[in-house]
Amino acid sequence: MTHPADLSLAELRQRVEAGSLSALDLAEAYLERIAAREPVLRAFAWLDPALVRREAAAIDRSSSKGLLFGVPFAVKDVIDTADQPSQYGSPIWAGWRPRSDAACVAAARLAGANIIGKTVTTEFATRHAGATTNPANPRHTPGGSSQGSAAAVGAGVVPLAFGTQTAGSVIRPAAFCGAVGFKPSYGTLHRAGMKVMSESLDTIGIMARSVVDAAYGMAALTGRSPGDVTAKPARAPRLAVVMGPQADLAAPETIALFERVAEACRRAGATVTPVTLTPPMGEAFEAHPFVMNMESAASIAWEMDHARALVSPVLAERMEWARAQDPQKLEGGRAAFAAARAAFPAMIEGFDAVLTPAAPGEAPEGLGWTGDPGFNTLWTLLHVPCVTVPAGSGPRGLPLGVQVVGRIGEDGATLAWGEWVARAIG
Amino acid sequence: MTHPADLSLAELRQRVEAGSLSALDLAEAYLERIAAREPVLRAFAWLDPALVRREAAAIDRSSSKGLLFGVPFAVKDVIDTADQPSQYGSPIWAGWRPRSDAACVAAARLAGANIIGKTVTTEFATRHAGATTNPANPRHTPGGSSQGSAAAVGAGVVPLAFGTQTAGSVIRPAAFCGAVGFKPSYGTLHRAGMKVMSESLDTIGIMARSVVDAAYGMAALTGRSPGDVTAKPARAPRLAVVMGPQADLAAPETIALFERVAEACRRAGATVTPVTLTPPMGEAFEAHPFVMNMESAASIAWEMDHARALVSPVLAERMEWARAQDPQKLEGGRAAFAAARAAFPAMIEGFDAVLTPAAPGEAPEGLGWTGDPGFNTLWTLLHVPCVTVPAGSGPRGLPLGVQVVGRIGEDGATLAWGEWVARAIG
Repeated sequence: MTHPADLSLAELRQRVEAGSLSALDLAEAYLERIAAREPVLRAFAWLDPALVRREAAAIDRSSSKGLLFGVPFAVKDVIDTADQPSQYGSPIWAGWRPRSDAACVAAARLAGANIIGKTVTTEFATRHAGATTNPANPRHTPGGSSQGSAAAVGAGVVPLAFGTQTAGSVIRPAAFCGAVGFKPSYGTLHRAGMKVMSESLDTIGIMARSVVDAAYGMAALTGRSPGDVTAKPARAPRLAVVMGPQADLAAPETIALFERVAEACRRAGATVTPVTLTPPMGEAFEAHPFVMNMESAASIAWEMDHARALVSPVLAERMEWARAQDPQKLEGGRAAFAAARAAFPAMIEGFDAVLTPAAPGEAPEGLGWTGDPGFNTLWTLLHVPCVTVPAGSGPRGLPLGVQVVGRIGEDGATLAWGEWVARAIG
Repeated sequence: MTHPADLSLAELRQRVEAGSLSALDLAEAYLERIAAREPVLRAFAWLDPALVRREAAAIDRSSSKGLLFGVPFAVKDVIDTADQPSQYGSPIWAGWRPRSDAACVAAARLAGANIIGKTVTTEFATRHAGATTNPANPRHTPGGSSQGSAAAVGAGVVPLAFGTQTAGSVIRPAAFCGAVGFKPSYGTLHRAGMKVMSESLDTIGIMARSVVDAAYGMAALTGRSPGDVTAKPARAPRLAVVMGPQADLAAPETIALFERVAEACRRAGATVTPVTLTPPMGEAFEAHPFVMNMESAASIAWEMDHARALVSPVLAERMEWARAQDPQKLEGGRAAFAAARAAFPAMIEGFDAVLTPAAPGEAPEGLGWTGDPGFNTLWTLLHVPCVTVPAGSGPRGLPLGVQVVGRIGEDGATLAWGEWVARAIG
């Protein structure tokens, strides 16, 4: 019999409904996995096995059997939990106990999930990294900022986790760790109770072990039907391949990967057409650092003004840079974002989805640098759904992924084309 | 010599710079006003005069003299303050002490403001009213949800206050209380540390005693120049008069007011042209309750799941209604909002600003019902800047106001046309 921690969410569900698997069984199965990997992985900022078992027992006693009944769900530590500390990756918030669950955590609990722990985040989901290691090789970064969530799901020690993305913080670490990252359309998961940095950009997403599990998780959280992402579509997709706006970041393994993936998709019947970004995309891309950092500086003004010595030098310097910018840069940046969003549908007219790198290449060596989000920021500011599809490994044996991108609101279709690509590349 | 609490912010500033007015003088002047009115006004959810005096002394000792040096600034109690409780108008949050200031509070303090107290909000800024009374007549509502802020500024007991608007929660209470309410373009003031209900709608704004003070306050908070809103513009404005989408809500005093205001603006040289809303505006207006309530239900899911008995019946019923809706309604509503925002510039092409009612009429009698936001929700979902311009009083002697609306990002111009209208109607 398959170990419970190796089952898909739909398989788990069947066993729960059949009465052959309890929330406590699930908790024990995953706690065992965590215990085996955590000393090297360091994915958790907070983990209290006794609390997890108590919570599992409470779920087993409850009368409702939500879609995530008993499913261990890890939460990036920029998202509040009423029963566990929320420390935002910053010593300023060490030991902080919020009073309530964030909206997305409440939604997960309402669906029956067991909030198994808080995962390591870079400092306020920016650049200063935590101690988490890559599950494929502990000398390499898992990426960031959702590093604990990506590493935990990539290592298979949790089946679902929340991440957040302002630049490339869901998609890139998922690719580095061999996980599926899904950033839904902006606003899909409510940010109440999240430590929001950039209001225009921050998007809550999830990490899962497969595209199918990601679709299942999103359906459970939003009450929307995922559709059946495994159903064979009426036709193969028309894919737009976009390598920009920073194509020169692509490592040789990414260039080779794209040749392989394009060929596999064509063999499976897709049309695969290179598409060049239109000028509004480049202008919005250039504006991203201004909007991200200027909004973030407004968000953590209290920390900067009251606990400056506990802000990392790299973040403090960025926030001071942001505070020194002309406020017009922020307004102009938001206008550039809006223009790009308005122009995007025309740019991909006639295509079903965009195929684009998830990251420059394999995860960089070392834990200090979480990698470049140059293949992510455009899609974040466009507010479009994006999914990382694991796609083999690179020359050092670390995971690679590609990214499938859709239109605002077409989250289900984006996941379905992501699954199509996953099957095409085998 | 004018009482310090009767000076405009620019006049205060001159005296501060001349060394003839201290933060402590200002605190005392306003605390005296508050003491005289508060027993009937009941504008404050939290007020600690000793804290206000200590803070004033600290401001007086500081080396920097920001634009709001020593200015008493009241904060709607859905916005966090590190030194005062934040109770969100709900018994669930009674006595809650956040650890940090909200972003907008940090911005006000950085500019030198003295956070003088927390003002009464309806429950989570929705409909269940607090005890605040209208400064013109305590048997009438001050409106809501920013009721304490509107009443305090309308009564002249504070010069500036934060409000928030999801439907009509800044503009309408300001009109009812004879204050100037300013809702900037969506996103202008960062919502970190605010109890956000509807992510697509919630906008932080300010209340002031004049349009000029509102412009001064926004400049201090954002670092942007307000321009000189009192400067005579090169020409009179081309004003679009919009009575919809619920023109039938207008009370006789509002219809009469619009005839007077239109005539006064024409006499002052403006063109005043009735404009009909285009279909996308009506569709977005219809979607507003779905987006507002469905997003709010996601936001306060923890409260609904853990403290249901402490949620007011009116709010609990709405949240349950929202939870029962097809999730597609939310997605469709957001799409309708985006379509209306895209269509708005064409609708008002050739006009400088929109002139529209701020509220149906005078403030309703009684404290339970805060009035109808039917003249506000469209402009909130459009994300455009709106300012309430006080415009005399109605048949019962209660204040009336009109609303001037601009384009996204044209906040300074909107305030300037608001001031132009204020002068035209004398």
